[in-house]
Amino acid sequence: MSGPHRVLIVGGGFGGLYAAQALKRAAVDLTVIDRRNFHLFQPLLYQVATGALSPAEIASPLRVVLQKQANARVLMGDVRDVDPAAKLVILADETTYPYDTLIVATGSTHHYFGHDEWEEFAPGLKTVEDATEIRRRILTAFESAEREADPEKRAALLTFVVVGGGPTGVELAGALGEIANDTLRHDFRSIHTPETQIFLIEGAERVLPPYPPGLSAAAEKSLIELGVRTRTASRVTEIDGDGVTIQIGDRTERIATKTVLWAAGVRANRLGRVLNERTGAAIDKAGRVVVTPNLTVPGQPDIFVIGDLASFMAANGEQLPGVAPVAMQQGRFVARQVERRAKGESAVPDLFKYWDKGSMATIGRASAVAQMGNLHFSGLLAWLAWLFIHLMYLVEFENRLLVLIEWALNYVTHNRGARLITGDKRP
Amino acid sequence: MSGPHRVLIVGGGFGGLYAAQALKRAAVDLTVIDRRNFHLFQPLLYQVATGALSPAEIASPLRVVLQKQANARVLMGDVRDVDPAAKLVILADETTYPYDTLIVATGSTHHYFGHDEWEEFAPGLKTVEDATEIRRRILTAFESAEREADPEKRAALLTFVVVGGGPTGVELAGALGEIANDTLRHDFRSIHTPETQIFLIEGAERVLPPYPPGLSAAAEKSLIELGVRTRTASRVTEIDGDGVTIQIGDRTERIATKTVLWAAGVRANRLGRVLNERTGAAIDKAGRVVVTPNLTVPGQPDIFVIGDLASFMAANGEQLPGVAPVAMQQGRFVARQVERRAKGESAVPDLFKYWDKGSMATIGRASAVAQMGNLHFSGLLAWLAWLFIHLMYLVEFENRLLVLIEWALNYVTHNRGARLITGDKRP
Repeated sequence: MSGPHRVLIVGGGFGGLYAAQALKRAAVDLTVIDRRNFHLFQPLLYQVATGALSPAEIASPLRVVLQKQANARVLMGDVRDVDPAAKLVILADETTYPYDTLIVATGSTHHYFGHDEWEEFAPGLKTVEDATEIRRRILTAFESAEREADPEKRAALLTFVVVGGGPTGVELAGALGEIANDTLRHDFRSIHTPETQIFLIEGAERVLPPYPPGLSAAAEKSLIELGVRTRTASRVTEIDGDGVTIQIGDRTERIATKTVLWAAGVRANRLGRVLNERTGAAIDKAGRVVVTPNLTVPGQPDIFVIGDLASFMAANGEQLPGVAPVAMQQGRFVARQVERRAKGESAVPDLFKYWDKGSMATIGRASAVAQMGNLHFSGLLAWLAWLFIHLMYLVEFENRLLVLIEWALNYVTHNRGARLITGDKRP
Repeated sequence: MSGPHRVLIVGGGFGGLYAAQALKRAAVDLTVIDRRNFHLFQPLLYQVATGALSPAEIASPLRVVLQKQANARVLMGDVRDVDPAAKLVILADETTYPYDTLIVATGSTHHYFGHDEWEEFAPGLKTVEDATEIRRRILTAFESAEREADPEKRAALLTFVVVGGGPTGVELAGALGEIANDTLRHDFRSIHTPETQIFLIEGAERVLPPYPPGLSAAAEKSLIELGVRTRTASRVTEIDGDGVTIQIGDRTERIATKTVLWAAGVRANRLGRVLNERTGAAIDKAGRVVVTPNLTVPGQPDIFVIGDLASFMAANGEQLPGVAPVAMQQGRFVARQVERRAKGESAVPDLFKYWDKGSMATIGRASAVAQMGNLHFSGLLAWLAWLFIHLMYLVEFENRLLVLIEWALNYVTHNRGARLITGDKRP
């Protein structure tokens, strides 16, 4: 071989970025390709959607993060195809980049279970643009309500429906409760914002279904205190410009609303299907590539798939969840494998094992639920743990400082510092 | 009269907001209508366009600013028409709002001197969306250059043209120089960003034409040190997707570029024309309403026009410039007049007089020019004065703190904290 081992990473999310950083000292020639010029800290995206943080505070330019890593280069580009025989990837502009090892970590997007027509009325929360669009809709609803004379229309404007009771849905609904009861309380003259109605719709029997039942109950209690009405064991059957219809058992309920937020299904990025077509790898019904125990594509020892794009069965027979810690650990695991290969060491088929450190979710001011191993806790202590861990994992020191200050200001002033209605129709 | 005197302010910029705040203790019923939900600190908008600040750091929700002012309410709406006989304004959704006194302060927008086709290639800088679009174009040009193999195309991607050598143009060109020479210097692997070419085109004989000649010279010197090529006494004759053509005397010059920024002409908001049609008030060629010495529309003692929308001749026969201090002083002046009227005091025809405290502009790191009365200075001292004054005038304490910290971080790390490519085509 002429030059050093060429490693190509597609996607600069948690999986791709942690793989790249773990290869810092490896004798490889590393390229990270992403459609965006920044790494996004998705666990805090709901705080942008609810006006607490600015996009730049939870995003770090990939070039800045990898600036001092001499073996790494960053390219902004949209990978559309992979040629495993020629060992290269093809971008949307038809340029190609060769690899010796390919790591695909392009994540997932939202999915409407065959109801793509719902997207228009119920945006999901995956990108910075999604977040500012949701922020626009939430704040515009209150502004329109202030000017609306008809009580029925005003009530629909002051009704918010969040579909999906996982961590994102719970955190969005909690933040909406706080906005209505606290942040905006003294801002309007015609409407009384605590009259806002917030619904959280979940298909399972309880919110936060993967969490221990005690924590689900604690989360639901906190949500109710914030005025959120939870509808569990409920299925959405219709979403349009005037409201949402849900089915609970054999009863249906219609909720008149102008603002629906989607935090339910996700589907793997389209590169899952590309890998399926090019290598014959199986994909599951969410479009994720079913990977081997060492995270390669079956029969393709040079192609790794990690993070939300990978379908990986844990030892207990359960599918690993699409969360940041899984992607981070997979990124590091793959980096170690690649480093060994680059040194020419025999590829001992190491097995990926996920170490579940726990899960947590915030529900408004000084309230959260957390589970770490057998330790379950909620309230202020869980909230402080949540704050600390989320600050710690922000990639750049600058973001850590700015988020800390924004949070402190928001906490003290009961304000949300980034309440801007921007984008969409230019004024 | 039944209730308190109804004052309607259209526009929450410097003029409208300062008028509203100066009426804090007046026995009036005050309504502020704006198309946006926030007051924007436009003098720092170029820092958003160049990735140094986030939009929320220079924008304050009008509701937050006026939250504690019991006599004020805020409405988000688009005023399309005025009926001086019935004394009401008409919004785009056809709702109407009555007034006893109307203050119109809707500002200005950019203007392409009859070449509207240039807008597509040369965006101006007036709104948050303009700023994030300009940021997207600047950062995307560097990203594309990194991936471009053809040297000629790469050179065009690394060429930036700023049209207009007033404060905004000078500050944009200076920030571009800093980005190329400092911020991005170590971020790329294929391109050497200090090779970037930046042109600043100005029609007058020198940059910052309204400033004293000594300061123009100091500004030009600082720009040249940052690698900016100034083209004074130059007129733009063509802008398209491949470059800009300028005329200097009888010589023409073609600059191949993919990024042109417009900081030249402005035109008054369309309400100027509406007032012209409804009241017969004269408008100047930039569409501004020619106001009386007490800032009313001639023959309409109940309608004030202030800020960039007003054409006001100072005692020295010169037109007042469209800058924040003029709007702020006019806002306060009008508030005093309105307060007297609301008390039923006779409308002594007070005359507005602008107190020119000076002007300043920054040109990159630790460099600025300032003029205060007969005092002219440049360099570090001017830069510190600029920092202090701009921080002081930010409306909210939270923004002051966040901007101060962003500036400190940017200064120490040589980074720009908000370098995100967002918006436009969704990825």
